[in-house]
Amino acid sequence: MSDSRSRDLPAAVGSTSLTALAGALPAAGGHPSFMNNVPDPALAGKELPTFKFALENSEGKVIGNSSGKEATVTQLPISKGIAGVSMRLEPGAMRELHWHATAAEWAFVIEGRVRTTVVDPGGCGETNDFDPGDIWYFPRGHGHMLQCLGDKPCHFVLIFDNGYFSEFGTFSVTDWVGHVPPALLARNFGVPQATFASFPKEEVYFARGELPPEKPSMPLQGWKLPPETHKYRMLAQPPHGIYRGGREWRVDSSHFPIAKTITGVVLDLDPGAVRTLHWHPNADEWQYIIEGELSVTLFGSHGRYRTESLEKGDVGYIPQGYGHSIENVGTETARILLGFNTGIYQSIDLSQWIAANPSDVLATNFNQPAEVIGKLPARDVFIAAKDGID
Amino acid sequence: MSDSRSRDLPAAVGSTSLTALAGALPAAGGHPSFMNNVPDPALAGKELPTFKFALENSEGKVIGNSSGKEATVTQLPISKGIAGVSMRLEPGAMRELHWHATAAEWAFVIEGRVRTTVVDPGGCGETNDFDPGDIWYFPRGHGHMLQCLGDKPCHFVLIFDNGYFSEFGTFSVTDWVGHVPPALLARNFGVPQATFASFPKEEVYFARGELPPEKPSMPLQGWKLPPETHKYRMLAQPPHGIYRGGREWRVDSSHFPIAKTITGVVLDLDPGAVRTLHWHPNADEWQYIIEGELSVTLFGSHGRYRTESLEKGDVGYIPQGYGHSIENVGTETARILLGFNTGIYQSIDLSQWIAANPSDVLATNFNQPAEVIGKLPARDVFIAAKDGID
Amino acid sequence: MSDSRSRDLPAAVGSTSLTALAGALPAAGGHPSFMNNVPDPALAGKELPTFKFALENSEGKVIGNSSGKEATVTQLPISKGIAGVSMRLEPGAMRELHWHATAAEWAFVIEGRVRTTVVDPGGCGETNDFDPGDIWYFPRGHGHMLQCLGDKPCHFVLIFDNGYFSEFGTFSVTDWVGHVPPALLARNFGVPQATFASFPKEEVYFARGELPPEKPSMPLQGWKLPPETHKYRMLAQPPHGIYRGGREWRVDSSHFPIAKTITGVVLDLDPGAVRTLHWHPNADEWQYIIEGELSVTLFGSHGRYRTESLEKGDVGYIPQGYGHSIENVGTETARILLGFNTGIYQSIDLSQWIAANPSDVLATNFNQPAEVIGKLPARDVFIAAKDGID
Repeated sequence: MSDSRSRDLPAAVGSTSLTALAGALPAAGGHPSFMNNVPDPALAGKELPTFKFALENSEGKVIGNSSGKEATVTQLPISKGIAGVSMRLEPGAMRELHWHATAAEWAFVIEGRVRTTVVDPGGCGETNDFDPGDIWYFPRGHGHMLQCLGDKPCHFVLIFDNGYFSEFGTFSVTDWVGHVPPALLARNFGVPQATFASFPKEEVYFARGELPPEKPSMPLQGWKLPPETHKYRMLAQPPHGIYRGGREWRVDSSHFPIAKTITGVVLDLDPGAVRTLHWHPNADEWQYIIEGELSVTLFGSHGRYRTESLEKGDVGYIPQGYGHSIENVGTETARILLGFNTGIYQSIDLSQWIAANPSDVLATNFNQPAEVIGKLPARDVFIAAKDGID
Repeated sequence: MSDSRSRDLPAAVGSTSLTALAGALPAAGGHPSFMNNVPDPALAGKELPTFKFALENSEGKVIGNSSGKEATVTQLPISKGIAGVSMRLEPGAMRELHWHATAAEWAFVIEGRVRTTVVDPGGCGETNDFDPGDIWYFPRGHGHMLQCLGDKPCHFVLIFDNGYFSEFGTFSVTDWVGHVPPALLARNFGVPQATFASFPKEEVYFARGELPPEKPSMPLQGWKLPPETHKYRMLAQPPHGIYRGGREWRVDSSHFPIAKTITGVVLDLDPGAVRTLHWHPNADEWQYIIEGELSVTLFGSHGRYRTESLEKGDVGYIPQGYGHSIENVGTETARILLGFNTGIYQSIDLSQWIAANPSDVLATNFNQPAEVIGKLPARDVFIAAKDGID
Repeated sequence: MSDSRSRDLPAAVGSTSLTALAGALPAAGGHPSFMNNVPDPALAGKELPTFKFALENSEGKVIGNSSGKEATVTQLPISKGIAGVSMRLEPGAMRELHWHATAAEWAFVIEGRVRTTVVDPGGCGETNDFDPGDIWYFPRGHGHMLQCLGDKPCHFVLIFDNGYFSEFGTFSVTDWVGHVPPALLARNFGVPQATFASFPKEEVYFARGELPPEKPSMPLQGWKLPPETHKYRMLAQPPHGIYRGGREWRVDSSHFPIAKTITGVVLDLDPGAVRTLHWHPNADEWQYIIEGELSVTLFGSHGRYRTESLEKGDVGYIPQGYGHSIENVGTETARILLGFNTGIYQSIDLSQWIAANPSDVLATNFNQPAEVIGKLPARDVFIAAKDGID
């Protein structure tokens, strides 16, 4: 019997290890799922929808002098993949202990100083202090708090890998503890029920108290640090790229290992400079204008093309794979914060693509003589300066 | 040309290996997909929906003295991520050869003895015998059968990584063979058409025959074992954790490598003990009460809070990231079977989170003096006993 | 305090590395997502829907003597996971530079010669020439072009890992450049606006020009090759399996590493031979008949069974996990091209499954005496020849 089998059954090359890999790759519960292929109806029309939202002009949530303003699919329907929040905390204020069931959080500090604590499923905790230009990343579901540090207010931008996520529907510790019957609380913590008598009964959201100590205090359990830090000093690094028309800082999981689902970029464009026509094959892009006046273009196949003017405090959004550019149309240097829902940054510039093709292909494609093709740059142009690319 | 390029193009740090990784991580056909972000409408209301279903009181499918009862999204709409089945086989009965196109299967034996066979895409087969406390795992789409072993009935619980999966809509071998034209069957197997004359024409589901041999027989093709076993003796191991109020057995893919999409837990709670307030950042939780009377709480943000009473034979469900606790409100030790749709177990206890924060943060968050905070435990409390946590 | 902790907290075995792994596995933005579990309504009816589309009889898109015909969910609603295109280019014609935001591309050359260029996010480009039997793979979002090589027309079949993807809604370079304002183009490329005066203003799709040079020209940027090649000479290899009734060539990412989301197979069946009853646990299957007359069967649980006749130029589709077979009912050898939306090929044959079970199990399952079971082959039968399996 084994003889006849050998005739019919070719050797399964490496089947053992491949079977193991096949089991590991698909996420639980759906591989492949046809649902992953369903196109976003917001992108299926004859015209491209708006990709701009004036975040800082929105109302948001205000308590005292602290506030949070958000851009989700409710405010900006095209932004299915990424939501964002601009948050300001007054001295002594704290965005209380909370977690998100449906999103990881990436943040960039614009002004002031911030302290965070975070806990992970291994029972490790980390407390970090942040200055402007620093970033943090908290994986989906990890408990954390954000606190204004010092006697000046702070301002930071939060980026979430889920456009449906609302910062106003998180799981806050006071909301939870306030609804658990005191008898269960008492048993849970091994203390008398009376311990919780004056605890808040509803969600506090922004708690307010003493200014925090300048140096972080030891957690109740002592120091027990996680294997990967949640903090990265983004702008304290030399830029990822320096160009005649601007500078780019970029950090993904290759340099900030814990940030497995979000990549961040800070882009400085001098007046008249253009982050050239390009696209991202593996991620959506969320934009927040820190400073400046920009003209952003979006290309969406079928001849669909749209331009929006963005200024300080505005949010923009580019769906995965869509062509776009960003031009500084103001008179001062512009600074843009970009977030991508990927742990591995990828982009392809139109100039790079053209430079990777031979002249005869381009001549046929554009129906041009070779001498016209010869005028195009033979290399990638990441940022074009106002007065040229050399 | 190479000179001007070097000015514009920063070195792509490690781009080669990262590009390869980026290609490997996304599952086929959708990364990132906005559909993954769409929230479950069952969780979007002002009140939390019920998360309990009285599985053993349901009708299910009965043939002779064998039966299967199921909890899917039809019976319990909140349970989108996980379905479950309670199955009983009489001596000589077999849940026939079948596979599931849309779910992997994890199982726990409660009573009696069970034999299984399973085939994998490498052509390997495994036959295993199970006693109470043993578990199996069959990857999505792998063909298998379940058989009562010995002269006493058996009872086991099946957990599937898909809440839409119905055990009554599987791909059964008699259903298939019964509908294939005899001429094709004959050619397929190289035998005369008459060979199949008396084969079943419709799905048998529970087949009945002789008691199986006490020792497994050799498969037709001889022994050809798979690289990873499908069996794990869960309760034969020492508990993962022993506490004054209970015990926990836990097994995920770190100890049972083939179980890449489902983690299982058996939790024993002494009378009055509480599996304390906690959440799972990376998985939904499916509960089956083997013994006892429990009070289960669920917290769902926006002040939504719900308590259900579960007893022997009931099923409960906790969505990913939702806060919850389980308390033994009966007079006997309770035993709960838990299934998670992840290959890597993760949880965060409220007590652990609090212990990972310093006193000043907690004092501000709860608006309490430091001495109140000082009464809270400075460590994780996984299970709290009736009379305290020490 | 540390003493009491050690009593309550069992050691977290390997939690550090597992936490890191847990972060790496889930794709950005959704793990687990209930949406992945939602069943395809096209498969939920009492009858199986058609799984056949006469691709070559459809109209498609025609420019000169070049054409593209496609099968997407619009033409074949069951084909949610995979779309396909049959494309013919006349000499001098080029499917212009373009990319797909939502699909990777796998291709098989049937007739004539093809040249491609492709760019990746690392800035690398590759130019390849293809003969009949050769294949290519372009990851999602990577820019590429396809060109007829030589003075004879060419014909190839494209397979995409997304049934919603339409080849007629791609991002073409002329469509983009034609809609960007000349001032932005000029700044982007550092050239005068007039450079683009006679560039196309709308999508060209099939460009036409001189016959390409027999030897590929150097790209503008010089040679800068990617880490993994996009070309594989499939039919130039010995078959993966040789059987008395046919031959099978198969290539997945184990031999063609860049093809991480699509596996391809070429199957030759002699007259009367059957690719026996089997299913694929991890992928959908897309079929294109290169030559021959076939009878394809589909089994879908609940007694649903459907047979379709496919001939040269027809497309068939088998959903993940569904049972099926392919029989050559013509008088000549048939050749079928198969595409799977997975980077790792997996299948289970009914004969293999039966051979992996012992006789007593099969006797009970089919309610047959052991001597009937003994007539079934004790091994896998991948292809059954017209006159038997030995």
